Amino acid sequence: MLIDALQCGHFDRAVFEELKRSGYTCVTPTLGFWEDTLESLDAIGRWRDMEREMGDLFLIARTTADIRRAEETGRVAVLLGYQNSNLFQNRIAYVELFADLGVRVVQLTYNNQNELGGSCYEEKDSGLSRFGREVVREMNRVGMVVDLSHVGDKTTLDAIEWSEKPVAVTHANAASLFPHKRNKSDDVLRALTRNGGVIGCVAYRNITPESACATVEGWCEMVARTVDIAGIDHVGIGTDYSHNTTQVDIDWMRKGRWTRSVQYGAGSAARPGKVPKPDWIVQAGQLASVRDGLSRVGFSAEDAEKILGGNWLRLYQAVMG
Amino acid sequence: MLIDALQCGHFDRAVFEELKRSGYTCVTPTLGFWEDTLESLDAIGRWRDMEREMGDLFLIARTTADIRRAEETGRVAVLLGYQNSNLFQNRIAYVELFADLGVRVVQLTYNNQNELGGSCYEEKDSGLSRFGREVVREMNRVGMVVDLSHVGDKTTLDAIEWSEKPVAVTHANAASLFPHKRNKSDDVLRALTRNGGVIGCVAYRNITPESACATVEGWCEMVARTVDIAGIDHVGIGTDYSHNTTQVDIDWMRKGRWTRSVQYGAGSAARPGKVPKPDWIVQAGQLASVRDGLSRVGFSAEDAEKILGGNWLRLYQAVMG
Repeated sequence: MLIDALQCGHFDRAVFEELKRSGYTCVTPTLGFWEDTLESLDAIGRWRDMEREMGDLFLIARTTADIRRAEETGRVAVLLGYQNSNLFQNRIAYVELFADLGVRVVQLTYNNQNELGGSCYEEKDSGLSRFGREVVREMNRVGMVVDLSHVGDKTTLDAIEWSEKPVAVTHANAASLFPHKRNKSDDVLRALTRNGGVIGCVAYRNITPESACATVEGWCEMVARTVDIAGIDHVGIGTDYSHNTTQVDIDWMRKGRWTRSVQYGAGSAARPGKVPKPDWIVQAGQLASVRDGLSRVGFSAEDAEKILGGNWLRLYQAVMG
Repeated sequence: MLIDALQCGHFDRAVFEELKRSGYTCVTPTLGFWEDTLESLDAIGRWRDMEREMGDLFLIARTTADIRRAEETGRVAVLLGYQNSNLFQNRIAYVELFADLGVRVVQLTYNNQNELGGSCYEEKDSGLSRFGREVVREMNRVGMVVDLSHVGDKTTLDAIEWSEKPVAVTHANAASLFPHKRNKSDDVLRALTRNGGVIGCVAYRNITPESACATVEGWCEMVARTVDIAGIDHVGIGTDYSHNTTQVDIDWMRKGRWTRSVQYGAGSAARPGKVPKPDWIVQAGQLASVRDGLSRVGFSAEDAEKILGGNWLRLYQAVMG
């Protein structure tokens, strides 16, 4: 089993052939960052067209049964996900409608505060708002994964507390291993553990230790240290791997339509542009090397399976059935 | 069985109690006239809230199996319908998405020409457009009823020809019985018959003969004359009954956002406002009196059942399964 809880960029046949060849069980692509309802529906339309064109390579999964069916038929399972809640356009009713259309993962905020709560980049995090509470419970009800990766610490803790189901940090690292606003404090990780949630460890250079970018063993060491904090049942993979991403995409991710200023996202003035992928995962297919890597840093086969996908599958089962 | 293929206005608990008490099997309310994608999604959200509040009275049906389930559990089945295709906002992908959300009936045009074709009130009817063809076939594929009631004659004939499944004129009368732009020529009715489609006879005063407004027998006589034209397997009920409709609603139906001028819809300068309901159907529940009426004008019990709902059910089965 190999589950990556967060990738982004442009998926095409070559991408899916590589994911399939490399043994991916399931991947969550990003269908939107700032997109509103109509644009988000358009993205679903595009993914359905892609599914019709590449049905030999992947299927859009709505349940863990679909993920197993994909595995049995030699295809990659895709969970439709958004890195922001703008798709709901302030309507509680749209949570259920988008769930009906197959959306299974929604991050409460992207890089900016929104109606639901504060982001990791805001100076002051409001915590989970009144509408945010409504959305979290509605996502619980309809079987959508609450993703807290880019969400501010206070809002994250509020959401963990408020959610009636396990929640996800699909793509972040432990801030105690690499201090960065995008990474999660030990307090957050321990709260996530109590909630039954899962954090996906990232392989994106801007928020990942140098040693974990240099070799797969280094990355697996980082995973082991994350397990020390969160526990073996609460750590998985969320690479943040981006396919075929251009500067136009990066500008959209960082600036959306909200600013004309220069924005660095997880980068900085010292490292403003597109950063090289970690040396050990230049191609998405190299993620398969994590299996050996986990073994070499001392994980048992059973524990490695949890990290490689077992923990995500348990969370998906709990949330979406 | 009692199926009304078109009602409009504001449905509330009192309405559904009356429909249930009067033995309605299935009704298609109008969720939108000019509404765009977002407004149409909002309408679905409201209907889902209503279903949660009044689940003892009705259910939203997606298949004929749902209609039977409603009957078995003493509830009214509701087919979600729109009297215009603006909900798709020019996107072929949205046909499937709205079908997934439970929409089962869409009229190609309301009173004005749109991207799909011409309306019954346009001086010149373009016929079914290139996008119109795409939408009809996509509606066929995803199991939506193509409704041609307010559609112009040429576009109607084109759509009948082009559709791979039976189509519907959910609410119109025969123009040879009451000449009006909203009513359908014998040519159209005969083409509908060849296609396996169904026309729903209307009980709306502006487009219905005076005799058919005066008594239920008069209306059933009109139905009998329609059967003479279209055949016993192709005539059903589509009252166009409006619940709790105000002048604001009528203005919206007639003028949408497209004009500041005075518009009469199916009315006229001589009869500009809200017209009284036919004498025999002041309350929607009185539709049940059609069963006796059909018998009194000479229909066998078997043929009456076809008109009362059997023909619609056959069409629904053919279209939506």
